[in-house]
Amino acid sequence: MASKYPPSLRIHLPALILVYETCFILIFYFFVLYDRERDLDIYPAFQDVSVMVCFGFGFFLAFLRRYSFSSTGFGLLLTALGVQWAVIMDGFLFHFSHGKVKISLQSILTAIMSIPTVLISAGAVLGKANPIQLIFMAMMEVTIFTTNRWIAVGILQVPNHLSMMYVHVFGTYFGLMIAWWLYHPSLSQKAEKENTKPVSRLFAMLGTLFLWMFWPSFNSVLIDVGHKSVTIYNTYFAIASSTVAAFALSVATNKDGKFSMAQIHNATLAGGVAIGFSASSIQQPWIAMTLGLLAGSISILGSVFLQKCLNTSLRIHDTCGVHTTFGLPSLFGGIAHIILTLADHWGSSNQSHWGYMALMELGALSLSIVLSLVAGLVTGFLLVSKLWKASHVTKYFDDQAYWEFPHLAIGY
Amino acid sequence: MASKYPPSLRIHLPALILVYETCFILIFYFFVLYDRERDLDIYPAFQDVSVMVCFGFGFFLAFLRRYSFSSTGFGLLLTALGVQWAVIMDGFLFHFSHGKVKISLQSILTAIMSIPTVLISAGAVLGKANPIQLIFMAMMEVTIFTTNRWIAVGILQVPNHLSMMYVHVFGTYFGLMIAWWLYHPSLSQKAEKENTKPVSRLFAMLGTLFLWMFWPSFNSVLIDVGHKSVTIYNTYFAIASSTVAAFALSVATNKDGKFSMAQIHNATLAGGVAIGFSASSIQQPWIAMTLGLLAGSISILGSVFLQKCLNTSLRIHDTCGVHTTFGLPSLFGGIAHIILTLADHWGSSNQSHWGYMALMELGALSLSIVLSLVAGLVTGFLLVSKLWKASHVTKYFDDQAYWEFPHLAIGY
Amino acid sequence: MASKYPPSLRIHLPALILVYETCFILIFYFFVLYDRERDLDIYPAFQDVSVMVCFGFGFFLAFLRRYSFSSTGFGLLLTALGVQWAVIMDGFLFHFSHGKVKISLQSILTAIMSIPTVLISAGAVLGKANPIQLIFMAMMEVTIFTTNRWIAVGILQVPNHLSMMYVHVFGTYFGLMIAWWLYHPSLSQKAEKENTKPVSRLFAMLGTLFLWMFWPSFNSVLIDVGHKSVTIYNTYFAIASSTVAAFALSVATNKDGKFSMAQIHNATLAGGVAIGFSASSIQQPWIAMTLGLLAGSISILGSVFLQKCLNTSLRIHDTCGVHTTFGLPSLFGGIAHIILTLADHWGSSNQSHWGYMALMELGALSLSIVLSLVAGLVTGFLLVSKLWKASHVTKYFDDQAYWEFPHLAIGY
Repeated sequence: MASKYPPSLRIHLPALILVYETCFILIFYFFVLYDRERDLDIYPAFQDVSVMVCFGFGFFLAFLRRYSFSSTGFGLLLTALGVQWAVIMDGFLFHFSHGKVKISLQSILTAIMSIPTVLISAGAVLGKANPIQLIFMAMMEVTIFTTNRWIAVGILQVPNHLSMMYVHVFGTYFGLMIAWWLYHPSLSQKAEKENTKPVSRLFAMLGTLFLWMFWPSFNSVLIDVGHKSVTIYNTYFAIASSTVAAFALSVATNKDGKFSMAQIHNATLAGGVAIGFSASSIQQPWIAMTLGLLAGSISILGSVFLQKCLNTSLRIHDTCGVHTTFGLPSLFGGIAHIILTLADHWGSSNQSHWGYMALMELGALSLSIVLSLVAGLVTGFLLVSKLWKASHVTKYFDDQAYWEFPHLAIGY
Repeated sequence: MASKYPPSLRIHLPALILVYETCFILIFYFFVLYDRERDLDIYPAFQDVSVMVCFGFGFFLAFLRRYSFSSTGFGLLLTALGVQWAVIMDGFLFHFSHGKVKISLQSILTAIMSIPTVLISAGAVLGKANPIQLIFMAMMEVTIFTTNRWIAVGILQVPNHLSMMYVHVFGTYFGLMIAWWLYHPSLSQKAEKENTKPVSRLFAMLGTLFLWMFWPSFNSVLIDVGHKSVTIYNTYFAIASSTVAAFALSVATNKDGKFSMAQIHNATLAGGVAIGFSASSIQQPWIAMTLGLLAGSISILGSVFLQKCLNTSLRIHDTCGVHTTFGLPSLFGGIAHIILTLADHWGSSNQSHWGYMALMELGALSLSIVLSLVAGLVTGFLLVSKLWKASHVTKYFDDQAYWEFPHLAIGY
Repeated sequence: MASKYPPSLRIHLPALILVYETCFILIFYFFVLYDRERDLDIYPAFQDVSVMVCFGFGFFLAFLRRYSFSSTGFGLLLTALGVQWAVIMDGFLFHFSHGKVKISLQSILTAIMSIPTVLISAGAVLGKANPIQLIFMAMMEVTIFTTNRWIAVGILQVPNHLSMMYVHVFGTYFGLMIAWWLYHPSLSQKAEKENTKPVSRLFAMLGTLFLWMFWPSFNSVLIDVGHKSVTIYNTYFAIASSTVAAFALSVATNKDGKFSMAQIHNATLAGGVAIGFSASSIQQPWIAMTLGLLAGSISILGSVFLQKCLNTSLRIHDTCGVHTTFGLPSLFGGIAHIILTLADHWGSSNQSHWGYMALMELGALSLSIVLSLVAGLVTGFLLVSKLWKASHVTKYFDDQAYWEFPHLAIGY
């Protein structure tokens, strides 16, 4: 019989973290220099994105009734570690010359924008992985995702800002694969601890709103000045209409005609996710609005019809529903962008050029999916090893396994 | 006897929302183009205002003990729908040429800045109107408010940024008229559900603080560069001194000498509201501070002496106290600006010009009040129709009428 | 026997506040003018700092189970009053000419950046001082701190941005001295009311995260454009690695191998505090990371080993642990900067110049400590007078002493 007490992380966790941090410092010591650029124009948008990643995602995941400390705390830890590693990975793959890596605000921005992969995956395994497992997962994921971007940009010639938009789809399928490894039959029944409570949902609302408001910054920050404003408009209209779709379909699919806060949180963001690929190229707002409306609908319908089947048939327990929040809308957005690219240039003089571009992009999207699935499978396989002192399933979804409370917080 | 169960919104609500959204998409398809300007200087302030509207107002209204989901959720829905409609209305009235409407960041900004009317009105009827009623109210209000702005700018020649400052007074009186229609004798006694609880007040504090901090952006974002900094300073000093007045008078008017958090929330913002009209023209900080001090005092004294009388004598139940937060301070600020304009140019060479300006402004202020009262009366009359499936009064102030909860959340 | 009811503040508090505000308005009337500069480049960073001070610090202190209203509410009041006074003090000492003080966005920014001294001190005496005492403390502290800055800049020739970084160390030791005066033997045992509860900790997490994310803005906003980007990078890396250290050592020093949320909140910020002095001059990221790692470690170890001793031996009860959050890391950062300055220029041609600079800086740091200790002692001595209607110790840590609740909120 497994122990009822979660294994103490007192030695392993600090050792792991400090080894990582020491390695980072050593790598920075030998290889990393500051680029002395002075261009701070993007700093406000940089801060918007930083707020989304550090605060928005953390609180977006704070909806479980007994797991808010872990959602927000581990989010911060993963961000702090992940950003440093992402700066290194991005530096070596994209900015390495003469034996040195030069980093700028752009490098840190790129690193921060890679972290949503980790936090989306953390959403899929929320409550089931301990911090040691999460950290290892984060390191693996940042590595593979940056490699994926490098292949997309370097080999498939996908534009840089587009390569970053695979965060959502990558994070989702990577996380789902790990959730598959961490599956336990008892998860087919929703445990009491897996429920939410109103105050936790309000904290999640906080996170959702900050993601919602700053999504135009996320989609536009890497776009060059000439297309930035259009990107902002399109993202704004898409996320507004996906919000409308979320509210409409949430009521329509509920047998009592009531809203589900969980669905609202997830589906309001779908428009921002889906428009990511095409926000800089769409020239008419109605297209953005239509994409947003469809993305919101797909997200709600996915959560109603697909979510359960994922859990029972495929034995994948997706705690936060990242598949319908980020996975499906992003897939839809990726395909929509390819279709829009083809449609825009159909019959134009350089039709074959754009056909090639669309093909490359389809390749990059497929690559992201395949790579995330394979890497997720491998990482998940490594994560079920005894080495990681995984929590027993009875300790899932419980802050008390990892956090000190004054008394055993019964009422909590 | 009325049913104890709130009527299901399953068909009506999605139908209404989706019809609106479809109309928006069609209008955008036929009439709306992007302006290809590249001027993104105002983007950071745009985001500040967006945070105020999407997050600040929503959480500002989250203070009821059992109504936080609706406050924040419906706030988001009204914003998402209202912004699209406001872009259209503003486009047709202000930017229509050659059969097309060209929109820019400025258009979306203007649209977002019109939404506080809706959210202020929603504060007056908080807990009493169902989402269908709120959506219809929002559409009516955005239409009339934009028309009001168009008359003020086009006919009365009030500057554009000034015409936007009528949001507060317009939203208040529009909302109060609807509250009058939705009045029920049982509202004269404060129901248990109408109370707040500490954690809800803290969420409301969050919203209040974000409104407070970004108010300088709200007042200055439409001002031209030459007067922007002065606007920021004046708003900052006015809101700081109204905060001081709020704390002082809240204690002084309480029989136990204690602070009332509700009063603090409402009156701290009064300075920002009141200074809105004159922030760009005041040249000495002490005037801004004095206005702020007076606005904060008016707000507190209004809530102590006027609020009850509004409820019992006029049968207007103002849930959030928007009359003392936005209505009175804005009225005060509008009149103060007219007096300051006259005083500044008294005896100057073009005294008659400024007298005319002041007269026009008085006309615009009166117009806003009259139009909001009349439009509110008409909208309220339409809203009490059976068509809207209004909630029974026993379901007022209760999230469970509209939101799904895992179990019937008794303790909630 | 002392009264069980806290003394009513109904007369004293409004009188004190309104006298202050009236004085401010009079001083502004006679002496203060707006500078008509139009340079609003720093406005976004100004808003970041404003969010940190108005919102971040207030919610950072919201962790006590029954004291969240006071933490956030009094924080706002102290900010509103303190900023106005700080503008005046800074104006007279730094910008006084021809009998007038000219203020600009920079003046308001400087004033806001001085407020953390007050809020840090408020953290040390959290729950023990009533609002009247806090306001008097704030006025004293702003006065002395601005004087301290003036001596540092004017006499010791420390750069302006550096002189601002003494906020942390100044606020800490000033606050600790006052905490010493307010000590009561019953504080040696942790009262039930002094505990936290999960939801309060989450609100504190909100505040912490906003401090964390915007710390690069705090450290860089006063730096000239040429060194701004380096300052941002260094702060970012330092605060990330102190977060890593905080998580690692929090687990390592806990006998059950669990995280302590209190330690996480305090130590994650240590890197930003410590790097404040040297962020603009460090040219290699690994140095910033190492400083951050050490600062985080010092903060955690201080809270484990030093905190208790401070309470029992020195009879200083530091409610929020500001000594380990701000005091120690800032001391460490100040000394580190002096050492780095010397090491950087060791053997260089103008070694003696830099030696002199380092000496001056050592002087300024010592001055800040001595001045904060002496001023804190004097202020604390004045604060224990009966005049201030201090709360009885049984009313410590309790919102109900100052805030109105609908019923006596038992469950609260």
